Amino acid sequence: LADIGMQTLPNGKDIKLPTVLFGVLGNDELKKTLLIYGHVDVQPANKEDGWNTDPFRLTEKDGKLYGRGSSDDKGPVIGWINALETLRRKKVTLPVNIKFCFEGMEESGSKGLEEALSARKDTWLSDVDFTCICDTAWLGKKPCLQYGLRGICYYFITISSSKQDLHSGDFGGVIYEPMKDLCWMLSQLTDLDGKINIEGLSEMVRPLTDEERRLYDEIDFDPEEFKSNICVPELTVKTKQEILISRWRNPSLSVHGVEGAFSGAGAKTVIPAKVVGKFSIRLVPDMDPVEVNRIVIAHLDNLWRQRGSPNHYKTTVCHSGKPWISDHCNPHYSVAAKAIKRDYTREGGAIPVTLTLQELTGKSVLLLPFGRSDDMAHWQNEKIEVRNFIEGTKLMATYLTELSSI
Amino acid sequence: LADIGMQTLPNGKDIKLPTVLFGVLGNDELKKTLLIYGHVDVQPANKEDGWNTDPFRLTEKDGKLYGRGSSDDKGPVIGWINALETLRRKKVTLPVNIKFCFEGMEESGSKGLEEALSARKDTWLSDVDFTCICDTAWLGKKPCLQYGLRGICYYFITISSSKQDLHSGDFGGVIYEPMKDLCWMLSQLTDLDGKINIEGLSEMVRPLTDEERRLYDEIDFDPEEFKSNICVPELTVKTKQEILISRWRNPSLSVHGVEGAFSGAGAKTVIPAKVVGKFSIRLVPDMDPVEVNRIVIAHLDNLWRQRGSPNHYKTTVCHSGKPWISDHCNPHYSVAAKAIKRDYTREGGAIPVTLTLQELTGKSVLLLPFGRSDDMAHWQNEKIEVRNFIEGTKLMATYLTELSSI
Repeated sequence: LADIGMQTLPNGKDIKLPTVLFGVLGNDELKKTLLIYGHVDVQPANKEDGWNTDPFRLTEKDGKLYGRGSSDDKGPVIGWINALETLRRKKVTLPVNIKFCFEGMEESGSKGLEEALSARKDTWLSDVDFTCICDTAWLGKKPCLQYGLRGICYYFITISSSKQDLHSGDFGGVIYEPMKDLCWMLSQLTDLDGKINIEGLSEMVRPLTDEERRLYDEIDFDPEEFKSNICVPELTVKTKQEILISRWRNPSLSVHGVEGAFSGAGAKTVIPAKVVGKFSIRLVPDMDPVEVNRIVIAHLDNLWRQRGSPNHYKTTVCHSGKPWISDHCNPHYSVAAKAIKRDYTREGGAIPVTLTLQELTGKSVLLLPFGRSDDMAHWQNEKIEVRNFIEGTKLMATYLTELSSI
Repeated sequence: LADIGMQTLPNGKDIKLPTVLFGVLGNDELKKTLLIYGHVDVQPANKEDGWNTDPFRLTEKDGKLYGRGSSDDKGPVIGWINALETLRRKKVTLPVNIKFCFEGMEESGSKGLEEALSARKDTWLSDVDFTCICDTAWLGKKPCLQYGLRGICYYFITISSSKQDLHSGDFGGVIYEPMKDLCWMLSQLTDLDGKINIEGLSEMVRPLTDEERRLYDEIDFDPEEFKSNICVPELTVKTKQEILISRWRNPSLSVHGVEGAFSGAGAKTVIPAKVVGKFSIRLVPDMDPVEVNRIVIAHLDNLWRQRGSPNHYKTTVCHSGKPWISDHCNPHYSVAAKAIKRDYTREGGAIPVTLTLQELTGKSVLLLPFGRSDDMAHWQNEKIEVRNFIEGTKLMATYLTELSSI
């Protein structure tokens, strides 16, 4: 259990970060070494948020196990332990040494982990031959292997006017309202279909090769089912290939919200004095966060000059993370594919440790999904299906034994 | 103490509305009758909001009395009582009968009061000859009389897409994001300087007469002081006359906020599924709320068609209130002006009961301000200056005795 330092909370208080478990199982010099990553922290959950069961008591119903962390990511961690227990009971000799890295800050950006891993680059990590991360979900209802994750650049647009909020009855009509400036700025970033109106970004995207395009053709994915699962009237693109490419290998811009304006229910007659608009851009290879940040901030600053408002304005970077992509043709992926007999896919989200581990070990990192995309990870009534848990655990055991063939 | 019925809370629970005090002092049939309105409820306040003192313990410091309600509106209510006590002690015979209407729901839209007053139109209210409302503030640091209040129409724009919030990593790129639609809609309502881009509204505004324009010329008001008090870099208009006209006798549109999007501190990678944008328009004579609502909703519906988004959309009216204007040339205003020796002004905000009392009594209603515009009514560290309290109480006593001249 490794101490990974302190965290300063927004209120200024310092607290210890949760320790990271660095485990070792086997140290046969003739065997290769697999690193398994998982996390045991979860998103917040309260019964009052709309859970049908106590979120912190695992509850089985209709073939589903409900509970916070059941799919993301306590369930998969237990899956590894069950797989190893079974192999030991069946007296199967493991073809690899195993190292474990289980952390408790993943849902908070893996704070402290990168430093802890970097410090172990030439020691504990030096003999790792491949890494497996089980913290993603199947595509739809089907198992898959993932070889890519998008990165992210997250921005704050801060606009302020008066020293305090003003009453719209007394002051409406003479104030350059920051909220109006902000809505205008945010409305300029994309067109209706989501195309990003920031010059220079699309040029950074690695061109799609014919081989890669064929990979999308082969993926088993039903656009209609996807659409009806999330209940949207329309998607911005229609075909299977377009949907997967838009989610995985193209950048996207999302507007998340506004801090400082009235956000409660009902009506309040306020002119907010200071508002912070929040948006982010998902990055794909070869977008470099440093270059993206430079382009985006210059674009926003220029937009602000076009707006011509006398208010105070600033766009800042909240955080950024690089995209990650792996070579899915290497033997590590082949053995996993043999275990799973399924598609190669990417994923739209980010797991910061993926890139860190690939860079520190210089070896192949594999994303082996366990739960399903409709498991409600991060939401109310998170679950793992019993079938996923059992078959997923079998898959883990099979993957471990298949590693002997490398 | 009159029972005014029940209120249904947002959680579905019914509670009794606070009683209204209907008081009578004097019933000499040879005298005219003055109705005094005030309210004893206040805005919420917590020490943690940033108060320097306990908001519910009146604290004197540097000639100022700090406490919630000191200026809005417990202070003025006590001012009336002090004025009457002093006149009684000095054995001054009141030249009028007085009726009091003190309520406890003003900060919540005077719920129940209109019905209670309407029910008393032909009885308790029938002999009222003039009404005085002491619930507004001086213009800057100078006393004044107010003869107008703007009305309001408050709107919700509701836009929704998926059945629940989505993760921007997994879904960014294929979703028509409601938040982007909303920012665009809100950005179309006004131009940079606040001019309302809704056809048909400005045509409803009563033209400014030369006589009225002269009234603005005569008002003692310093634009620079006003600007520096609220600390804004620029105002949308520059001259004294333009500022006062924009605040009092022209409509204005303010964007208050968004419900349903991320509004906390920090970063959240969410695509909000359902957002409600909130804006309001301040009304002036002769804008009729029914007609304004018709025009505004038709305009928004038309904007939505221009946007061409497949998402679900609706604009609804949250509440509306008519503007109020009084004839400031009548004897009631003249005696008050004699007592106060000051300017005639209007006010940008709304006090719903003003119009109700004018319509039910058919007689003159006067707004006699007591506190100052920098008293922080509705905000942290609300105060009334000792000078305002003493001189304001003297003004009330003088006004009462001057009524003899009508």
